[in-house]
Amino acid sequence: MSDRNSEGRSLPTSIRRQRRRDTEVLAAAARVFAQAGYSNASIQDIAEELGILKGSLYHYIDTKEDLLFWLLEGVHDDVERILAEVGARTDLNPLQRITEYVRRQALYNMENCERISVYYQDMDRLSPARRAALTQKHRAHSLFITTLIIEAQTDGLVDASRDARVLCNCLYATINWIHRWYRPGAKTSRFTIADTCAAFVVAGLAGTA
Amino acid sequence: MSDRNSEGRSLPTSIRRQRRRDTEVLAAAARVFAQAGYSNASIQDIAEELGILKGSLYHYIDTKEDLLFWLLEGVHDDVERILAEVGARTDLNPLQRITEYVRRQALYNMENCERISVYYQDMDRLSPARRAALTQKHRAHSLFITTLIIEAQTDGLVDASRDARVLCNCLYATINWIHRWYRPGAKTSRFTIADTCAAFVVAGLAGTA
Repeated sequence: MSDRNSEGRSLPTSIRRQRRRDTEVLAAAARVFAQAGYSNASIQDIAEELGILKGSLYHYIDTKEDLLFWLLEGVHDDVERILAEVGARTDLNPLQRITEYVRRQALYNMENCERISVYYQDMDRLSPARRAALTQKHRAHSLFITTLIIEAQTDGLVDASRDARVLCNCLYATINWIHRWYRPGAKTSRFTIADTCAAFVVAGLAGTA
Repeated sequence: MSDRNSEGRSLPTSIRRQRRRDTEVLAAAARVFAQAGYSNASIQDIAEELGILKGSLYHYIDTKEDLLFWLLEGVHDDVERILAEVGARTDLNPLQRITEYVRRQALYNMENCERISVYYQDMDRLSPARRAALTQKHRAHSLFITTLIIEAQTDGLVDASRDARVLCNCLYATINWIHRWYRPGAKTSRFTIADTCAAFVVAGLAGTA
């Protein structure tokens, strides 16, 4: 299911249909887990959310944990795509690339509030091996951002005496806290919120001297 | 137990002893809840952590929820004390008061990682009435900080076109995310981390124009 987020327009109809079903199953799981909590939610709840029989859901999965893992793995796949696109922007300086990343990631987190909420609430419910696989992905993302901050420090855009890992955590805080306070349909549009978050982070990084 | 955080030097010895015991009980509850999760933790686990009999613990509490509530109420009492002290600093402009608040609150969150972690992980386990009591306190704190940001906007220290509530959430993000990444004994001292967080937030607020 690792490429379920790619565009797939040239793929055969059967694969496109399969992927749409995967997306629907994971979206239903995200809603149920976010509302009831992973521990309290049952496969039956997710089947009901989808309007299918529990037995049909077992065509896709072996255990409830499969759904949690695919859901969280999907978040990492999406973050990786954003990072790859931001990394390719060699026309931008490190601080501009960070602006672009924060803006896009803030938007993503607002559009995927439920799965981000499940990520931070229930990641620890995964088996050690699966948790380790996600932690490894998370480390790679952190390293990417920390490296961008260090590049910005080398270029004199960010105070080089500050610990880049602490600054990276401050950056992540702004993005990763969004699911705790953002409510869809808020008066301020999500584009304006994303711009404000990006401006806050980049000014915060640039102005810590 | 609402005044367990005051200095109390002039109080009778019996009350001082009582308060020290309260502090010990709540510290043990914080450790056990943070490690096992509130739902999985038992009164027996907390009694064992304290090295006392379960029956003795029932002298203090009626239910496990009492411990969770007092623990989280204690966090709010501490935040209120910090806010009152920062609010009294009329010698500082709004942005300087925010710097002072973030620095002190960041330090507090590093020194109380376990109870902050329990706060965000298990607040929803409280009964609706108790959760509402804490939500009301949280709203008062947010209003205090949002008002400081609006004052800074009026004084031309922060871009007035930005939504002050979104900026308030960015500020809280920096502080409230600390428990997810800070580990005691880290190479960078907690004072340096608190200074970096405060510099990040204030530059972020000041530079969003």
